[in-house]
This record gives sequence, structure tokens and C-alpha cells, in this order.
Amino acid sequence: MSPQREIGIAVIGVGWIGQVHCQAYRQIPDVYPDLPVKPRVRMIVDAVEPVARRVAERFDVEVHEEDWHKAINDPAIEAVDICVMNRLHEPIAAAAAKAGKHIFCEKPLANTVAEATRMVEAVDGAGVVNVVGFNYRHLPAIQTAREMIESGALGEIFHFRGLFAVDDKASPDVPWAWRFSAEEAGGGALCTLGSHTLDLARYLVGDFDSVTAMTRTLIGERPVRGTDTTRSVDVEDMAGMLIRFEQGATGVLETTWLAQGNKHHHSWEINGSKGSLRYNSERMNELEWYDGTSAGNRRGFRTLLMGPAFPAAAAFLHMPGMGMSYADGMVIELKDFVAAIAGETTPNASFLDGLEVVRITEAALRSSRDERWVELRDAP
Amino acid sequence: MSPQREIGIAVIGVGWIGQVHCQAYRQIPDVYPDLPVKPRVRMIVDAVEPVARRVAERFDVEVHEEDWHKAINDPAIEAVDICVMNRLHEPIAAAAAKAGKHIFCEKPLANTVAEATRMVEAVDGAGVVNVVGFNYRHLPAIQTAREMIESGALGEIFHFRGLFAVDDKASPDVPWAWRFSAEEAGGGALCTLGSHTLDLARYLVGDFDSVTAMTRTLIGERPVRGTDTTRSVDVEDMAGMLIRFEQGATGVLETTWLAQGNKHHHSWEINGSKGSLRYNSERMNELEWYDGTSAGNRRGFRTLLMGPAFPAAAAFLHMPGMGMSYADGMVIELKDFVAAIAGETTPNASFLDGLEVVRITEAALRSSRDERWVELRDAP
Amino acid sequence: MSPQREIGIAVIGVGWIGQVHCQAYRQIPDVYPDLPVKPRVRMIVDAVEPVARRVAERFDVEVHEEDWHKAINDPAIEAVDICVMNRLHEPIAAAAAKAGKHIFCEKPLANTVAEATRMVEAVDGAGVVNVVGFNYRHLPAIQTAREMIESGALGEIFHFRGLFAVDDKASPDVPWAWRFSAEEAGGGALCTLGSHTLDLARYLVGDFDSVTAMTRTLIGERPVRGTDTTRSVDVEDMAGMLIRFEQGATGVLETTWLAQGNKHHHSWEINGSKGSLRYNSERMNELEWYDGTSAGNRRGFRTLLMGPAFPAAAAFLHMPGMGMSYADGMVIELKDFVAAIAGETTPNASFLDGLEVVRITEAALRSSRDERWVELRDAP
Amino acid sequence: MSPQREIGIAVIGVGWIGQVHCQAYRQIPDVYPDLPVKPRVRMIVDAVEPVARRVAERFDVEVHEEDWHKAINDPAIEAVDICVMNRLHEPIAAAAAKAGKHIFCEKPLANTVAEATRMVEAVDGAGVVNVVGFNYRHLPAIQTAREMIESGALGEIFHFRGLFAVDDKASPDVPWAWRFSAEEAGGGALCTLGSHTLDLARYLVGDFDSVTAMTRTLIGERPVRGTDTTRSVDVEDMAGMLIRFEQGATGVLETTWLAQGNKHHHSWEINGSKGSLRYNSERMNELEWYDGTSAGNRRGFRTLLMGPAFPAAAAFLHMPGMGMSYADGMVIELKDFVAAIAGETTPNASFLDGLEVVRITEAALRSSRDERWVELRDAP
Repeated sequence: MSPQREIGIAVIGVGWIGQVHCQAYRQIPDVYPDLPVKPRVRMIVDAVEPVARRVAERFDVEVHEEDWHKAINDPAIEAVDICVMNRLHEPIAAAAAKAGKHIFCEKPLANTVAEATRMVEAVDGAGVVNVVGFNYRHLPAIQTAREMIESGALGEIFHFRGLFAVDDKASPDVPWAWRFSAEEAGGGALCTLGSHTLDLARYLVGDFDSVTAMTRTLIGERPVRGTDTTRSVDVEDMAGMLIRFEQGATGVLETTWLAQGNKHHHSWEINGSKGSLRYNSERMNELEWYDGTSAGNRRGFRTLLMGPAFPAAAAFLHMPGMGMSYADGMVIELKDFVAAIAGETTPNASFLDGLEVVRITEAALRSSRDERWVELRDAP
Repeated sequence: MSPQREIGIAVIGVGWIGQVHCQAYRQIPDVYPDLPVKPRVRMIVDAVEPVARRVAERFDVEVHEEDWHKAINDPAIEAVDICVMNRLHEPIAAAAAKAGKHIFCEKPLANTVAEATRMVEAVDGAGVVNVVGFNYRHLPAIQTAREMIESGALGEIFHFRGLFAVDDKASPDVPWAWRFSAEEAGGGALCTLGSHTLDLARYLVGDFDSVTAMTRTLIGERPVRGTDTTRSVDVEDMAGMLIRFEQGATGVLETTWLAQGNKHHHSWEINGSKGSLRYNSERMNELEWYDGTSAGNRRGFRTLLMGPAFPAAAAFLHMPGMGMSYADGMVIELKDFVAAIAGETTPNASFLDGLEVVRITEAALRSSRDERWVELRDAP
Repeated sequence: MSPQREIGIAVIGVGWIGQVHCQAYRQIPDVYPDLPVKPRVRMIVDAVEPVARRVAERFDVEVHEEDWHKAINDPAIEAVDICVMNRLHEPIAAAAAKAGKHIFCEKPLANTVAEATRMVEAVDGAGVVNVVGFNYRHLPAIQTAREMIESGALGEIFHFRGLFAVDDKASPDVPWAWRFSAEEAGGGALCTLGSHTLDLARYLVGDFDSVTAMTRTLIGERPVRGTDTTRSVDVEDMAGMLIRFEQGATGVLETTWLAQGNKHHHSWEINGSKGSLRYNSERMNELEWYDGTSAGNRRGFRTLLMGPAFPAAAAFLHMPGMGMSYADGMVIELKDFVAAIAGETTPNASFLDGLEVVRITEAALRSSRDERWVELRDAP
Repeated sequence: MSPQREIGIAVIGVGWIGQVHCQAYRQIPDVYPDLPVKPRVRMIVDAVEPVARRVAERFDVEVHEEDWHKAINDPAIEAVDICVMNRLHEPIAAAAAKAGKHIFCEKPLANTVAEATRMVEAVDGAGVVNVVGFNYRHLPAIQTAREMIESGALGEIFHFRGLFAVDDKASPDVPWAWRFSAEEAGGGALCTLGSHTLDLARYLVGDFDSVTAMTRTLIGERPVRGTDTTRSVDVEDMAGMLIRFEQGATGVLETTWLAQGNKHHHSWEINGSKGSLRYNSERMNELEWYDGTSAGNRRGFRTLLMGPAFPAAAAFLHMPGMGMSYADGMVIELKDFVAAIAGETTPNASFLDGLEVVRITEAALRSSRDERWVELRDAP
């Protein structure tokens, strides 16, 4: 084993997801001992100093800062990992690109197509590795689905139906928070949850021709914690969408955070002329496949339990049925990021993919507002 | 047990569903010994004489005719059961109503709102019992769902999502048939399958405010059996729909007959502020309930196995888990029809319900054609 | 269609199961119009006169009697269907055989091997059609399993594991009844429930070489209804069994009526060198198949939804996923009985099969008492 | 955060499980930042030098050795983690205890009761922390089950049924390996897989009174890789067991590695007077609970999706349904080991628990050989 070159990384924003990333970077060398590079988080950035300090201590990171410019200016930092709120994605990414740093940016890439477009231009101009955090793409079940579809196992694709439903905001008693403000969060369930589903739709079926959408705020007021007052909500609690794919398939998609009992129900089904696939992230180690070419009395949805024979899984699973975790998916995702920096792979989900999803999201919001279909090719 | 009054019935159209009805009428007295009336099929009508004859022989029916007017003119016939193709529903129902006969009519009630409206006017004027064949309403799981929703177990209803997916036409090799002609069939998957789902949406959530829809013919040509030629398809293979309910909930609905692996997948989920319900007719004896008011670490979708403690089930199930059949649902449905004739109940699904679904279907087709939302209150 | 010869039947004992049989006989001509014979229940026998009378009225049977000898002596009765308590099976069957009547007898065939042996001798001597009520054998899923195993789809059979669990007696508050008395009922969960599972084990895997068993009464006292007292229970609440099949496979079996949440959980799994099958009667229209010869990353248990392409199902199911009922299984079973009388088939489950299960049951009880393995070939 | 005291650990034997342990130790400080101690693997021991070296490099361990005595004699080693083959467990553990080192030992604790007893005596005499690797105990679903049973949610426990089935040896083409030799492996499926199930039975229900068992080698010869010859197998491919628990419940247990389609099917169900629980490790983030005290028409098995509200899960799961991994269970298990060394907890599964399982295993093998029940209190 030749020594692994270290890649210095700054993680910017260390809420939940930023901390999962920190932990993932530390696991990568253990999980992938043959990787020629080794990520090392050298700087933690968070606007809240005690948070930055605590996370830096937790993960043995020498430096912690409150100002993200420090990461841009530090020559020891080869790559930045942006986990802050959406509206800061562009300025940080633009500066990082200009400084020649590789960039991982959490989804959604940006709040607007304008921002996302500038981000794509910035990284294109700088020639830096750029990845958007569509982590589901990397899971063995999704990789398997992609391979099967590309190999023609499903024949011609007819339909995609997707649902990302959770229930953490289903009770009207859930108090107001910045997530409920369009100005602060950029959007609601569609941006936060639905962007993942839209990305999988593109990844598995292809580009969108046009969409029509309905968004709705069902719980218009939320209690303000510690007071007797309420505050209004101006982001969508749910979005429904009808989709025409460029290659001819139809799509039906819904996302909501008001769906009692749905905990992490990110599911989709794809129907083709020869077969179908089903997935539900609450059982992320399973992929259901129906082979329409089997004999008439031997056909049925079969449950493929992920295991070493499936893409991306061998590093985690000694045998099928043992179970990978959601966090393992992020280990794979960030491994791909650093492998791309090492020139070993091309990123699976680049800023261009991030831009495409923002274009769809924006088109959907416009469609909902104007009550009409929106063609993606006409979108700004 | 006092003697049961016999109700003479003519079954008009004895394809698959007409024969299931014949059989159901014969089972009713066995299943419901305490019913004050007893249906007796006294006439089989089918335009194809050998079919009429064979079915009459099979079910011990004395009379079989090719012309449905015979049923209208026969004083021994107290009720007609219309199972012929959609475009004949109106003339038969109108004549039957005029003759004072009670009417069961298969769904969809009619091909157009105009026809359906005339049917409602005819039965209203005549004061006859009128029922449309939304058989799913009668199943124990659906009855239980309705009761739970009405009792407030789900709180305020936020979302409905429904899917009626089958795969019997998913292969491009399925030959052309009258089902693929708009003129003959009136419509495609939306009319045949989706009408059931629309009815359940209304039954469980309430009336529709407006819809936007996408319909699509994905397999545009079908081979003509016994030839080398193909013939074009002009009915929808699929429909997707976004729904605004009058009471504020949102709906997302899809129907398709191109969904490999889906055999009789008529499923829906309803999310409310306090809980959720899920149903899938491939497991029609189960209803899944999530009680959001349980303690945080004791919450989960629970599977209610239909049994004697559930509405409509005691006549069929000695204990939970034994399983009722699809055909049993029709026994319940037709029992309710004859009980209504006996004055014992009000029909669960009347022609008005049939009209409402045709209004929605027509609105959806218009929405798809015009690419815009259609308000139901503006519909003709 | 030539006229169907009528077969006069007496149903002896019309509790729940007897009534299901009455209803099934009436359905047979509707479901199987091409059957050359037509069963007709001509006599209802029940020791409790009001029950006999009410059931006769319900099913339009002209004659009802309290004494089963009337059925034996009536020349209009060609076949008897014995649904009374186990200890009367032998005398009735012996008399019926002597009178040349064909016999359907509910399971378990008898309380003892001695009785069952005499029953087999009686029908053998008389040459009458004899069937024991192992109704599960007739279900499409079981028929499919049998066909697959016989065709070698599973390779060499290694294991059988079976469970028949219900919960109707799980609460200690369930009051005492004759079911809890060995003298009256002949046995507990093993005889009532487990006999079905034992039969399926034989039907699908083959004859037993030897067994060791544990039986247990966990709720030793039951309240006597309407009093403050309790009465002791002397039948087994559960039985566990280890099995050696003659052909080399192993078996593990359990039955209990104290299993909260199990409503009609009659399940089994069979593992062979090439594949496996799973079944659970709570989802009786499904059979799960694992094909071990599929490619390593395309293997998984697949759910075969029963439909017209499966044995015995076409008479009930227009398309897969519609669902048959438990009672439909009895229609198939009794159709096979009358078809055998007509000389069209050989009974699927004869008295010999009934005897074999009694031999196993008795061996199991002896094994439990003596705490040792019992060889079936040594059993009386 | 005060600095964490480092605990020097030697991992002895670094096949698959030893490597999972190495990785887990490195994750512990990240997952549990508030733990007062920090495990540090300071020595890798493996008899195969290149393996030892490679693993040491992979996990940044300074020292690697071929001889386990080096670990015993090294004062920098405070604890040893024994992952070598079973028959070496005793000598290593005895030496480690004598040297005052804390010990984690993989299951089964030993091949014989004699060995296991000496191990218990050694650690008792030395007063060192001792843990046996029953990793399933630590999973959130199992912890939840334990809590619910202890709180009385299930009432009086009636039944346990357990199954540990895999299929990695189901094909007769699987070549001979040391696993198939009793001398080298100590036993077959019962020791390797079943010991986990036996431990869960004890953990959730209680101590065993007596057992009767059947073991069987179904594939008696295995091909020798690279030759045309076969070699005989003398360990059990399967074991079935009937159990009497001391507190009165019954148990039925099976384990096999010949069960096609079962990948990591470690499942159990427990029935009590008030409710039931079900678990299957192929869906390790789910626990099914039936509450028999719910209203009659609101009862059903509900799926509890593990999440932050459940024991041991908050460190891994941001929200329910995200999914933990099998390896996460080992992180919990080894964290408990080092926390016990720090004096923070008492080990969940000590050598005494390991001994009890070996006693049961040995009793089962004796029972199978002698074809009789074996009382645990009489076991050596």
C-alpha cells in the first residue's frame, strides 16, 4: 500500500448534515483502504462559534472558524464542503471556485436558477471538481436500478411515480421555525425533500420536458415557541406534480411533510414495457423487481436484498440482509467526491445536475402560481 | 322466519361482470337469511343469443332475451341490473325508470355528463331506487376507513393519494380490441379504472373543487389479431391528476394499465392531522392505520385484518384473517341494492354519485386537452 | 349442456363449518357449470332441533332431522358430509359406508388411530368415495406449491417449517367451553389447528419417519361463564414438534391458540437445494417463491399473486390480485368430492390421509407424554 | 469537554469480524463524543503475518504481531478483543485475565462448557470486565423489546419462536472449508448462528429449564476446491429445538444455513397474554408490536420504525426510517465494553451469558445424540 495523499477539507456549516459529513470523511480511509487519497477535515466553519468549536473538538479538527472566507484563503484547504443554508451556497461556491478549490455542495444547489447558473459557470470556468449532495443516487439499490434500466431490463420506460413523505411537521403544534419562511429557507417540502425525488427521476428516467404542479400550505399558522402567538407559514407543506419526460414517459410526484406515519418514505416506482422496479427508503436495503418476461405463473415482484454482489455495497455488507445505514450512503457519496479529486472517477452528481433540479423546482413553483404547464426548455 | 318477498331481476349484459352479478344474486339469500326480500334473476339479456342462453342455463334462469326492451316491458321484472357497454346505460336506464323499475347500473354511469345528468333526472322523476356499481365502497376495509374518518380518528384530512394500476395491457403485443377505441369504450384507463378511485376519493374525503390532469396514450398502435397490421389507439393508457378538494385537502391520483407487476393495485393513502390510513386492494382484507396520537415510541402503521368485528364482514368471516373475495364485495353491494328496494336502507352509491364521477372524469379529460385547471363548479 | 345428475347429500352437524358446506354445495353448480353432477343438500341433521330447522330453512332444504341414522337410511341420500364433533365421526362413517354412501368427513378424521383405522377399513370394504376435510390442500397457492415441488423447482427438499397460530384463546378471560376438555374435544390446538399443518407437511414433503413433541397447557384454568368459579383445562394450548421425514428432510412445527395478533396465521416455508417457498394463510392469495438458480444479483423472494393462470383459480379470479376467499377453498374441496362421486377425479385427500395425520397426532401426544422420539412405523 | 482517557486495545484475530471491530473502535469517539474514555487499537494480532500487517496499516495501528502472547505481555494493552477461532478463546482469555486485562470475546464463548466455565472462573478471579459478543442484544429493536417485556406490555410470556436461517451453504456446490469440520469449528449452524438466537431467547424470556433437539447434516459431502474429490461434513447443517423456559413459557427454535432465500433471517416472535412482538434482522430497524389490549377492531401488528426516541438509536438516527447498519450494532456493543472499563456501565452480555449459551448448545447436541430431553440444571 503506497501512502495516501491527504486532501485538506473545510466543512462549512456543521448542523446535523455537516457533522454526518465530518464523520464520513473520517470513515473513508477505513472503508476504502485502497483509495489513493485520504480526506482530512482541517477546518470547521460555523457562524456560531461554540458550535464550530465543539464539532472541531469532537472530530479532532485543529482549526475552527466563524467566517467561511478563512477556508477560501487557506492554502491547506484543497476542497470545501458546503452545508450551510441555501442562500449562502452561491457566494461560497463562487469564491471557492475562484480560489481553485474543489466543491461539494449540499442540495438544493441554490434557491434560484439564476444563482445555480452562476455556480455552474463558476466551477466550469475554474475547472474544479463540483458535486451536489444528491446522496440517494449512491445507494446500492439506486445504483442497481440505474444499471438495470440502462441494460434494458425494464424495456421502454412508461411511468415514474415518486413520493417523498415525512411527518415531522404533520402536527399543527409543531412550532414556527426558519424552515417555514420562504425568505430564509427558499421553499418548503418541494425544495427540501422533493429535490431528492426530482433528481432520482432524472437519474433513472431522464430529462423533463414539462411539468404542472400544485403546491399548498395546509397549516397556515404555527405557534411561536414560548409565546401565545402564532406566525404565518409561507412555504409549501406539499407539492404535487405531473411530469412529461423528454423520452415520452409520464411522471407523477408528490412530496409532503404532513403525512402522519411516513417517517422517511422516499419511494418511487418505475414501470416499463418489460418490467418494473419499486424502492422505498424506509427499507433502503431492498429493491423490488418485477420481471414481466417470466412465465405467466412465475411472475411476481421479487425483493432483492442488497449485498456484496450489488454495486457500492461490498465495502459495507459482508452478506446480504445485514443492512447498510443512511450515513453509509454519505460515506459512498463523499468517497466519490474525493476520488474525483484524485482523478479516479467523474462525479456522479455535478452542479449541472443540481442546476437542473433547481430549474424543475422553479418551474413547478411558477406552474403552481400561474396554474399552467411550464416547459423546461422555456425556463430561464 | 317469515317468507321473503321475491324481487324479479333482469340482468342486462352478461359478460364477466354480469355473470358475477348473477352468481351474487343467488348467494344473497344464503348469506343474508334475515333479509326480508330475496332477489331472483328472472331474465338474462344479451345481444349475443348464445351467450344469453348459456348464462341463463348456468344460473337456472327461465327467460333469456337479446333485446333489452323485453326486460322493460315484463311486469315480472321489478329491477334491472345494467352491465352492458357504457353508451347503452342511458337509454336502458331511462326506459327502466319510466317503467318504474329499480336500477343498478355498472360504473362508469355514462360516457358523458349530459347522459349521466339525464339518467339522474330520469330516476329522480320516477322515484326508483338507483345504484351505481362502485363496488369498492362496500368492502369492510373501506367501510372501516369511512367510519374512522367520520369519527375524527384522522383529525383534519390533509392529503389523498390514489393509484389504480394494472398491467394487463402493458405489453405492446396485447392486440387491439374495442377497449382501445374512444368511440366504443368512451375512454381508457381513467374511465375504466380511475372512476373507482375517484369515487373512493369523494366517499372518503369529499367533493372536488378543481382538477388538473394529464392523460397519455403510450402505446399508440396495437397489432390486429390474425393480421400483420396494427390499428391506432385513441384512449388514454394512463391519467395523472392533481386535485383540490372543497374541504381544503390535496389529492394526487394516477391510473394506468401499463404498470407491469401491478395486478389489481387499487391503493390509496389518506393523511390527516392525527393519523393516516392505507389500503391496497391486492390485500383487500387489510387496512393499515397509523395513530399519530400514540406515544412517540409506540407509533407505527398497524395492519387491521378484517374480521367479524368490522362492518359488513361478519356475514363472510368466521374469524379475522380468513379472507373475503372480490366477488363477496359484489354480494354486499347487490344485497344493499335489494335491501334498498325493500326500503331497508338508502343506497350507498346512487346515480348522483355516478354523475359526480363522470363530471370529474370529463373535467379531467378537458383539463388534459386544454392544459389547464378545471373547476368542478363550472363544469356543465 | 346435458342435464346434470343430482347427488343427494345430507349434511350432518350444522355449526359454522356445516353451514359453510351447505352454502358451498349451492354455489358449486354456479361456479362449475360444466360439472356433470350437481350436489343437492336434501337433508340437514343436527342434534339441536332448532338449529337443524333454521339451517334447513336458510338453505331451502326440505328435510331436517335430529338423528343422523335418518340420513343413513334415506335412499335419496347418496352422500353424507360429516361436520359433527370428532368422536361421532367413526360411528356415522361406518354406518354410511355400510349403506353404500359416499362420505366427506371433517378433520381431524378421528380422535384415535383405532377409530381412524376402522373408518379406513369401512370405506375400503364398501368402495365408497371418502374424503377428509383438509381444505387448505385445494387452495391455488398450495396446489401451485405442490406442482412446483413435484416439477423439481426446489431441488432436493431440506426443510419444512410450519406454524398454525391464532389468538382467539390467548386471553385468560376466555371462558371455559367444551373445546377445553380432552374427553369432549379429543385434544387441543394440535388436533384442531395442527392437523391442517401436518397434512400440508405430508402433502408437500412426504411421509414422516419420526417425531418428538412438546405439548403444553399454559392457561390451566378458565372462568366458567356466569359464575365466579373456574374449571380446569386438560387439552394442549400449544404443541411444538420436531420431524424427520422419510425422504430425509427435517421439519419444525408449532401450533398454538395463544398467539396474540395471529388471527389465521397458518404458514409454512419449504427450503430445497434450488429454491424456497413461503405461504401464510392470512394472505392466502399469495405464494412467495425464491429461485436460487437466478443470477446472484437478481435473486429474491417473489410474490406470486394467484390468478387465472394458477391451478384451481380460474373459476374464481378474473384477474390476479382480485382475491379468493377462505370459503371459496371449500367450494373447490366439495366440488372435488362430488366430482369424485361422478368418477371424474380421485379425491385429493382420502380417509387414508386423515388416518396418517391422526397417527402423527397420536405419536406426538405420546412423544410429549413419554418425552421421547416416536417412530411412525412403530405406531399402532 | 475534558480529555478522554485512552484505552489501549489489542484485537486478536482480524478476519471479517475483527476488522469490523477495528473500524468500530475508531468510530466510537465520533459517535459518542461525551464518553470519558477513548478506545485506541494499539496492536493487531493475527497468526497470518501479511493479514496482520495489512490490517494494521489499514487502521493506522502501530504494532502488529503473530503471537497473541505479545498482547498479554504488553503493558500498553489494557483490553483484548478476541476474534480468533473458538478453540483459542479459553487460553487467550485465561492469560489475559491473569494479566489483569479486560476482555471482549466473540461468540460462542467456547466450544465446551468446560472451557467456558474456566473462562468465567478466570475473569471472576481477576475482576476484569468481560463481555461476550452477542451483538444483537444491543440493537435498538431488541433493546425496545426488552424494555416492553420488562414493563409488562406483553403480560405473561407464553411462547418464543426463533429462526436463524441463511443460505450461504445451501448449494451442494459450496466447497469444503474448515467450517464443515467439528474439530476445527466446534460445531455447525447451531454454534455459529443459533447461539445468537439462544442468547436472545434468554435475554428476552429468561433461563431455560430443558431442551430437546434434532441436529442434521443434510449435505454430507462437499467438493474439495481444485480437485475432483469430496470431503465429508461432520457439523450440523441445521438444528431444531423445543424449549421449556424456567418461567413456564415454551420455545421452538430452528437454525440452518441451507435455507435458500434467507440471507440474514434472524427472526423471533414472542407471544404474551397481552400482546406480541416480532423481529427479523433482515429489517433490523423495525419492530412489530401487537397490542392485545386495543379495541377489538383497532388491533393489528404495528411496525415501529426505529428512531431517536428508541434506546441506543439517537446516536445514529436523525429521524426514524433512516436506517442503522449491522456494523452500527457493533459500535454500540464495543462502546458498552469500553464504557464498562470506564466504570460507567455494567456489561450487557458477560462471560456468564456466554457460558449459559454454551451450556444450552451442549445440552442440545447431547439431546440430539441421545434422543431425549436434557435438563439444564443437570448439565455439567
